[in-house]
Amino acid sequence: MDVTRYTFEDFTPGRRFDFVERTLTADEIIAFATEFDPQPMHLDEEAGRASILGGLAASGWHTSAVMMRMLYEAYINGSTSEGSPGVDLMEWKRPVLAGDTLGGHCVVLDARASRSRPEIGIVRFRAEVTNQRGEIVAVSEYINMMRLAPSEGAAHAHG
Amino acid sequence: MDVTRYTFEDFTPGRRFDFVERTLTADEIIAFATEFDPQPMHLDEEAGRASILGGLAASGWHTSAVMMRMLYEAYINGSTSEGSPGVDLMEWKRPVLAGDTLGGHCVVLDARASRSRPEIGIVRFRAEVTNQRGEIVAVSEYINMMRLAPSEGAAHAHG
Repeated sequence: MDVTRYTFEDFTPGRRFDFVERTLTADEIIAFATEFDPQPMHLDEEAGRASILGGLAASGWHTSAVMMRMLYEAYINGSTSEGSPGVDLMEWKRPVLAGDTLGGHCVVLDARASRSRPEIGIVRFRAEVTNQRGEIVAVSEYINMMRLAPSEGAAHAHG
Repeated sequence: MDVTRYTFEDFTPGRRFDFVERTLTADEIIAFATEFDPQPMHLDEEAGRASILGGLAASGWHTSAVMMRMLYEAYINGSTSEGSPGVDLMEWKRPVLAGDTLGGHCVVLDARASRSRPEIGIVRFRAEVTNQRGEIVAVSEYINMMRLAPSEGAAHAHG
């Protein structure tokens, strides 16, 4: 990145970041499943229709990975993100079928300073992934560690 | 699958399934990150060394996807799995670096019948992914829905 768009200070509770929509193809679903989750309903249209998912359906972990890319585009790219220690919640609420167009948003739940690393803040987000009918297909609540903006004092100390 | 290895009845609390070990290469880490999580520490060795991760490190979602594949090989393949509504916990506790060999196991926490679908049971698992030093790199607790074995009565009714 050339320019920092967001530092910890930008992630105030309630702030929302919208996702850019993306259509998931059968080829993408099958490619992910072949590598990571080769259950029949993720590999084959017929097997998907015979399952409770009702069609060729993305692995839940594929939906999560697509959500990660949407988060990257929405706010992580160009931010001071230092990654995540994990997620508190990851629900796959509805099937994601081949041809579905995913969108949605994430919102800041809360943000606090790290006790052990004063240059870092801890931001909790809730993300909701929706389909083309506006139905929520996945929900996640997770933590993102973000560096604070450099302080004037620190800038001088290094200047 | 040709033969059903496991039905709901096999998943008794405390039963453990070991993972087959797998080494994660730099190419695999970069390929996943390019598609789903293109943060610099997941794409580039230098950027990884400059980050708190200490080297070219897999996206947490990549580690989770690899865990999914390990679960598939350990017990889902050949089972009556009907998928998962989500995970209660997904922690990425230590960096997974290029060349690390992952292993670990999952264990059944509890199992109960579904109230709404009597042919289905709900099994909760805890999975721990370890590296070649025996350190836990990821932990997940999640639900897997499993069909019960066909009852004698049901078999006769269809016979």
